[in-house]
Amino acid sequence: MAVNLPLPDPAALLPVAGLELGFAEAGIRKAQRKDLLVLRIAPGAAVAGVFTQNRFCAAPVQVCKQHLASSGGEIRALVVNTGNANAGTGAPGLEHARQTCAAVAALLGCAAQQVLPFSTGVILEPLPVDRIQAGLPAAVASLRPDNWYQAAEAIMTTDTQPKAASASVEIDGRKVTLTGISKGAGMIRPNMATMLGFIATDAKVAQPLLERLVKHAADRSFNSISIDGDTSTNDSFILIATGAADVEITDADSPAYRQLEAALTGLSQQLAQMIVRDGEGATKFITITVEQGANEEECRKIGYAIAHSPLVKTAFYASDPNLGRILAAIGYAGVDDLEVDQVDLYLDDVWVARNGGRNPDYQEQDGQRVMRQSEISVRVVLGRGTHSATLWTCDLSHDYVSINADYRS
Amino acid sequence: MAVNLPLPDPAALLPVAGLELGFAEAGIRKAQRKDLLVLRIAPGAAVAGVFTQNRFCAAPVQVCKQHLASSGGEIRALVVNTGNANAGTGAPGLEHARQTCAAVAALLGCAAQQVLPFSTGVILEPLPVDRIQAGLPAAVASLRPDNWYQAAEAIMTTDTQPKAASASVEIDGRKVTLTGISKGAGMIRPNMATMLGFIATDAKVAQPLLERLVKHAADRSFNSISIDGDTSTNDSFILIATGAADVEITDADSPAYRQLEAALTGLSQQLAQMIVRDGEGATKFITITVEQGANEEECRKIGYAIAHSPLVKTAFYASDPNLGRILAAIGYAGVDDLEVDQVDLYLDDVWVARNGGRNPDYQEQDGQRVMRQSEISVRVVLGRGTHSATLWTCDLSHDYVSINADYRS
Repeated sequence: MAVNLPLPDPAALLPVAGLELGFAEAGIRKAQRKDLLVLRIAPGAAVAGVFTQNRFCAAPVQVCKQHLASSGGEIRALVVNTGNANAGTGAPGLEHARQTCAAVAALLGCAAQQVLPFSTGVILEPLPVDRIQAGLPAAVASLRPDNWYQAAEAIMTTDTQPKAASASVEIDGRKVTLTGISKGAGMIRPNMATMLGFIATDAKVAQPLLERLVKHAADRSFNSISIDGDTSTNDSFILIATGAADVEITDADSPAYRQLEAALTGLSQQLAQMIVRDGEGATKFITITVEQGANEEECRKIGYAIAHSPLVKTAFYASDPNLGRILAAIGYAGVDDLEVDQVDLYLDDVWVARNGGRNPDYQEQDGQRVMRQSEISVRVVLGRGTHSATLWTCDLSHDYVSINADYRS
Repeated sequence: MAVNLPLPDPAALLPVAGLELGFAEAGIRKAQRKDLLVLRIAPGAAVAGVFTQNRFCAAPVQVCKQHLASSGGEIRALVVNTGNANAGTGAPGLEHARQTCAAVAALLGCAAQQVLPFSTGVILEPLPVDRIQAGLPAAVASLRPDNWYQAAEAIMTTDTQPKAASASVEIDGRKVTLTGISKGAGMIRPNMATMLGFIATDAKVAQPLLERLVKHAADRSFNSISIDGDTSTNDSFILIATGAADVEITDADSPAYRQLEAALTGLSQQLAQMIVRDGEGATKFITITVEQGANEEECRKIGYAIAHSPLVKTAFYASDPNLGRILAAIGYAGVDDLEVDQVDLYLDDVWVARNGGRNPDYQEQDGQRVMRQSEISVRVVLGRGTHSATLWTCDLSHDYVSINADYRS
């Protein structure tokens, strides 16, 4: 069902020196599927992350934040399970997340505080920590630098295919590698980061700069997508800089920093867009651009109102140019002083609405032509400033309902 | 598909002295269906309304507000068409709405400013005002006080059945009658009033008191429902007090005012709940109560986050007690200082979550039992104050997608 999303080529996924990945079939929710991932990080790396703003943030998210704060950045491993989100689980959930870290630490010979835990799956059910503990030795035994494809498989839930990509950039005459994985595929309206995204680079980056990089990339990628408008309890996006390559970034004003920032942002966008292309039940990939706003926030508000409207999303699904629904969404987005008679609307190259009303030259068949495409761009021009925002979303289909009505069964 | 919504009994719909209703099949969008309604109001009545907050508010909404302001309350008729919303139609749309009023005024012998126009249907398409003009003589010829059932039929769009109800209350020893109609069934997250709701009473009520009454009733009824979270461009709720009964309300602190307020609010809730019960594709009727909030606004925020979540709504559709999705919605509702370890969640009488985590005594089969019902109440207890809010919503089914993917075809 994914929209124009080819499977990643395992051979094109570049190992990142200083990082190994191992996986296991731990039977956490279902038998015979990869559901446990361990990432081992060599000493000397820096790690930064952004996490969900959901007040019901999951136990592993809380433990991640504590370990990042207490370990002084000396993180040595990540552990990820699917099948259970360990969210809405109270004090026992926190204890389970810490037990998971302790088990990884014992196998790898580091402190529990140097392990970051991640969980994704059903909310409000106790984490089967015994199965995770039982599966960890196999995951650790399989640690290898070239396991990125299997790692992407190991974090899938309702995703129909693994999501992974690599990039490389020459900085100061030396090659820097970036490789990342992500997962969706529902409860996606990240509000700091997506469900799960992990990117590693072999550049050496000081902790404050790494934190700045991860926020910059998240805002332009995982924080600019929506599938169903539901912000997950477990969203986490982690950036690891192993420092194994002979390239050190020390200055945010340097060309080297900007090169790494551009490569990282591009890779993050690629991974975020993969989540949308594989959105639950998705048949269309929609790019929404809101231009000429008074500020970026109002552009994002309007973009998200369009992206979240069930009526807009079902019209895309039906290839029905019922485009008044987009105007309605613009109108209720919460921009209280919006002058609608300044608003223009385009669908790809087709000028649909002009000065807040139907463009007299607009022909239904032109809208119809664009709506039939699998990739559609919606462009809203507000005519009140110089700011803009771009978001990515998908349509709402029968299969979305089927997938989410059946998710636990 | 409507959830526990019997057809109104035409004999139980009480005429309101001073008001007549007439209808026609004007072929506005489809042939051979009632799509045009005229309400004639006898001189001496007072009329008040609340309207959509959507910035793209439709041409008829703009004209309604102007006429209510300029006519000094001396409104003599309402005219309603379905099949076309006359929204996103710019200056020609305003002209069409005014032409409609002028045509009604010519037939009834009043001024165009004394007519309020209403439209509902597809957005962004020109209003076929010629068909409305051609249909009006038949509508006027059929004006009668006992046409409430047919009036409810004449304003339906994707509604599967007409929505109408009556109430009567004895005030100062005299009987006061209230009768109203409403319509849904999608693009429903009213933000002042529902798509269309009209209530008339034969009490005599001064204009300022009538405006206070209509706001009070709207906030507790049409402004407390959601089907898909989309706020329409055309939402309008109108209250007519004909004054034909020998009961006059002059003081907001009087028992008489409070009796009328209670009767009106009850009738408004009935009509608003009918819209939810007939929500597009609805199979479940959900009552969401959020209690012990620090203020009403945060209770409504959390209630709407639950009501709008596609994941919560599909779980209801599937009768799947995947109740962590409700916690996730509470967490992202935007109440930034919410202490989730104070939050309790009940499904009917079943205590699901306690202090922010799964209630140790909660049994999946108890949740399952409630989820199978066609009427479900969700109760969230925030433990941080004394305020509360109640909202009504429905589930998200395959049929919602089908209806909205096919609406224009």
